[in-house]
Amino acid sequence: MLTVTFPDDSWREDVGPVEGVDALVWDPAGGPPPEAEIDVVVAPYMSGSGWLDGLPQAPSTRLVQLLTAGFDGVPERLPEGVRLANAKGVHDTATAELALALVLAAQRGLDEFAAAQRRGEWLPARVRPGLADHRVLLLGYGSVGRAIAARLAPFEVRLTAVASRARGGDELVDQVHGIDELSALLPDHDIVVSVLPGSAATAGILDEGALAALPDGALVVNVGRGSALVTDAALAEVGRLRFALDVTDPEPLPPEHPLWSADGVIISPHTGGPSEAFRPRAVALLREQLTRLARGDEPMHLVATP
Amino acid sequence: MLTVTFPDDSWREDVGPVEGVDALVWDPAGGPPPEAEIDVVVAPYMSGSGWLDGLPQAPSTRLVQLLTAGFDGVPERLPEGVRLANAKGVHDTATAELALALVLAAQRGLDEFAAAQRRGEWLPARVRPGLADHRVLLLGYGSVGRAIAARLAPFEVRLTAVASRARGGDELVDQVHGIDELSALLPDHDIVVSVLPGSAATAGILDEGALAALPDGALVVNVGRGSALVTDAALAEVGRLRFALDVTDPEPLPPEHPLWSADGVIISPHTGGPSEAFRPRAVALLREQLTRLARGDEPMHLVATP
Repeated sequence: MLTVTFPDDSWREDVGPVEGVDALVWDPAGGPPPEAEIDVVVAPYMSGSGWLDGLPQAPSTRLVQLLTAGFDGVPERLPEGVRLANAKGVHDTATAELALALVLAAQRGLDEFAAAQRRGEWLPARVRPGLADHRVLLLGYGSVGRAIAARLAPFEVRLTAVASRARGGDELVDQVHGIDELSALLPDHDIVVSVLPGSAATAGILDEGALAALPDGALVVNVGRGSALVTDAALAEVGRLRFALDVTDPEPLPPEHPLWSADGVIISPHTGGPSEAFRPRAVALLREQLTRLARGDEPMHLVATP
Repeated sequence: MLTVTFPDDSWREDVGPVEGVDALVWDPAGGPPPEAEIDVVVAPYMSGSGWLDGLPQAPSTRLVQLLTAGFDGVPERLPEGVRLANAKGVHDTATAELALALVLAAQRGLDEFAAAQRRGEWLPARVRPGLADHRVLLLGYGSVGRAIAARLAPFEVRLTAVASRARGGDELVDQVHGIDELSALLPDHDIVVSVLPGSAATAGILDEGALAALPDGALVVNVGRGSALVTDAALAEVGRLRFALDVTDPEPLPPEHPLWSADGVIISPHTGGPSEAFRPRAVALLREQLTRLARGDEPMHLVATP
């Protein structure tokens, strides 16, 4: 039998019985595990990183399964010999939805309408940019990036995808450009959507020079990690460029931060992941992962550990 | 030669020369036409209905070409014998975009984020409904309705389309339901999107009884005509249902109207049409229409006149 702990009973219930799996409930942040011999720990979702400190209480753990795709800061804090699997794909639907929501809200002026609604003011008709016919540059073309591309497809845009390395295209884009082409691509795009993960390679990639290369009125959307966009560079371009940011640097944004009140800036509080779409997809991933492990197969979605 | 008037020089310029067409500029609201023998009048866009009073100044007019799909109130005011063509399709892209913008904004909480942004408050993470997996009822399945269906397709929803009469499906829906099935369909849907035009048949179709049939927390989006939704019935359901309305009754909404400040209500000021997508599509329609007329073909998009 494979002994697996879920962070609370609702996860255990939703995943249901899996052949060959003994399912327990344990939140590593809250004391020792209910049994000594734990094989797999499913990490808690949206409750900070305190669970990492509790992991050594289950020294037999071989694998930690995250419920997020992002894993910044986790590998360094894992006990030696523990492997890590992320939940690649479970946030694709929700994050791609939010990316489209932010793009459409900014391009159609929903932020201005919200302000007018507070004043009880019916704004006069004005032609706004919209999304159709615009040139969209998608930074990051993994599973979230492709989910965004799929949702953009019927919106009559011209889409350019960028990943860490250039490669061939797929049914959504003719080709995938390498990030080394970024500065050449920026001037030809009105909308930039970043889904870049947090890493040394992506930190500050949208800096003063990159933003300066964008045409007047361009929109920058960030649903990846806040570190990709240099906040001071964004603030310096307020008025010329527009921003719709689900992630920021710093994060959370402190109450008096100038981004809150900057003109043409929409902020959502890192809410790409939490929608009702998440749970059924995470449950399906857990069932598949545990079924594989109970069969003795290699886990899916292993991420590098130190 | 066919003599056509455009409402201003920018339209004449953008459409450019069409073989067999003599193109003039005339806004019927502003005095007599530059020549006596006008065949076709292109109506002004987004400038009220004053042009209708000026039309008798060009008694030779055979056809009025609108730049909008909607034509409420126009046929009754046309001089006898003048035919009317609408601009069917030119707003599909922009209106469908706005429908998606409103659905996504409401489902992902962008209205709450906008309020929090004003306060400089980073809201704690909370699971919001999102769009994926939800059951969407699309009321109105003409060209705007199909444009919405196409954009909803990659969002992993279950879509039901309703038109005035039941008919077979297409590549987007298995079947099209008749409006007589509405009350049976409402309880099974979380999101209702109305693109119904203004007419006696659609007025008040979303009344107290229809809204009561919707499940708790359902979202009603209106990008068609305000008359389809009974405003008092909507106000009575505030708290249980949510609304995102680009059109209202009355319209414009007066400053003190209770809808402005109702909880869970997003209002945009009838802005489905005006986006940058409109003009290139309207220009293409005018070129095609004038080319047909100059050849002696029947006009496209004729709408019933009394």
